[in-house]
Amino acid sequence: MAGRFITFEGLDGSGKSTQLERVAQRLEARGVSHVVTREPGGTPFADLLRELFLRREAAQVDGVVELMLVFASRRQHLIEVIEPALASGAVVLCDRFTDSTYAYQGGGRGVQPELIAKADRLATGCRAPDCTLFFDLPPEEAQRRRRRHGTDRIDRESLSFYRRVHAAFRERIAGEPDRFRLIDASAPIETVAETVEEALSDLLAQLQPDRSAGA
Amino acid sequence: MAGRFITFEGLDGSGKSTQLERVAQRLEARGVSHVVTREPGGTPFADLLRELFLRREAAQVDGVVELMLVFASRRQHLIEVIEPALASGAVVLCDRFTDSTYAYQGGGRGVQPELIAKADRLATGCRAPDCTLFFDLPPEEAQRRRRRHGTDRIDRESLSFYRRVHAAFRERIAGEPDRFRLIDASAPIETVAETVEEALSDLLAQLQPDRSAGA
Repeated sequence: MAGRFITFEGLDGSGKSTQLERVAQRLEARGVSHVVTREPGGTPFADLLRELFLRREAAQVDGVVELMLVFASRRQHLIEVIEPALASGAVVLCDRFTDSTYAYQGGGRGVQPELIAKADRLATGCRAPDCTLFFDLPPEEAQRRRRRHGTDRIDRESLSFYRRVHAAFRERIAGEPDRFRLIDASAPIETVAETVEEALSDLLAQLQPDRSAGA
Repeated sequence: MAGRFITFEGLDGSGKSTQLERVAQRLEARGVSHVVTREPGGTPFADLLRELFLRREAAQVDGVVELMLVFASRRQHLIEVIEPALASGAVVLCDRFTDSTYAYQGGGRGVQPELIAKADRLATGCRAPDCTLFFDLPPEEAQRRRRRHGTDRIDRESLSFYRRVHAAFRERIAGEPDRFRLIDASAPIETVAETVEEALSDLLAQLQPDRSAGA
């Protein structure tokens, strides 16, 4: 049978990557074939693109150009990693996907959602995950957590930037309520883990162990 | 007044780059402000993308992904180099542009023209040059000339690949006959130079010398 494509979304600092690792461990313990991946990245080619962005010249890059690079990288990720894994029946756990583009490039940097949709149609035919966990956390609290854990390029953005990102995520959820599971990320880590397990129970219930293809 | 955007197209080996240099020298001698550029490349960012393609991983890149990178690079080239030069009144001489994408990715590698048009709309709003010189040469003769001058990555393509590229160029010309000037590139180099000068005479006639902005 075909696998399950599950994405993890939320602000930096929302704890989504930690929870993704927990889900992977549970699947591992149950012997369910799965693949852990992330965006941006996930392929050697996409990692090169990521490198490119971190170089000095990328600071001058126009918003639509950045958008095209993001979706070029996503298409390559789908072709090389995600679709083959799903076809083999594996569960794919992906840290960030298209919703993050709408949130960060769209809400955060003001790129028109219509342009994002056009690039998405061209690159992926608007490929959507089977289920998306959104780790909901007030932007102020996410910032406090990031400060506790040092900083990186994106953390130098202002609080108002993160408020726009958060609002854009909420808009995505309002537009496709069936695909999303809202997770209260302000709860203690163990409580969040239980909420995640419950949120995925239906989706993962029918999956059979398959040790031959375990990731 | 706004400048002139002139592109030079043709098969590798058609002599277009040599003729572009000649036109630049004539403009220089007349004191006409001009900018010489090329694709792929033309910006520090685009040059990085070019590098990326030459790396091993790029060999695995899907056709649509390549297309998106080509147009991302083209948009950056337009924003950083071409449009500012035209706005300042300069003549822009560009070695290859969108017609080459239709010819090489489309005709050569079989990417659907409809996909190319979509990427072009997204990236550039289908920006067309004011005039395109097409250096027409039978694919067999172009190959003989390339062999005389060594080889590179693209020269390892088969003759049938170049026949498809050539046919796709001719289709572009049939679709927009007013934009193109057909140059017989099989003539001796001095004859070709005269044909080029004549082909551009109307377009360049009204331009005034402007030593302040000479490239």
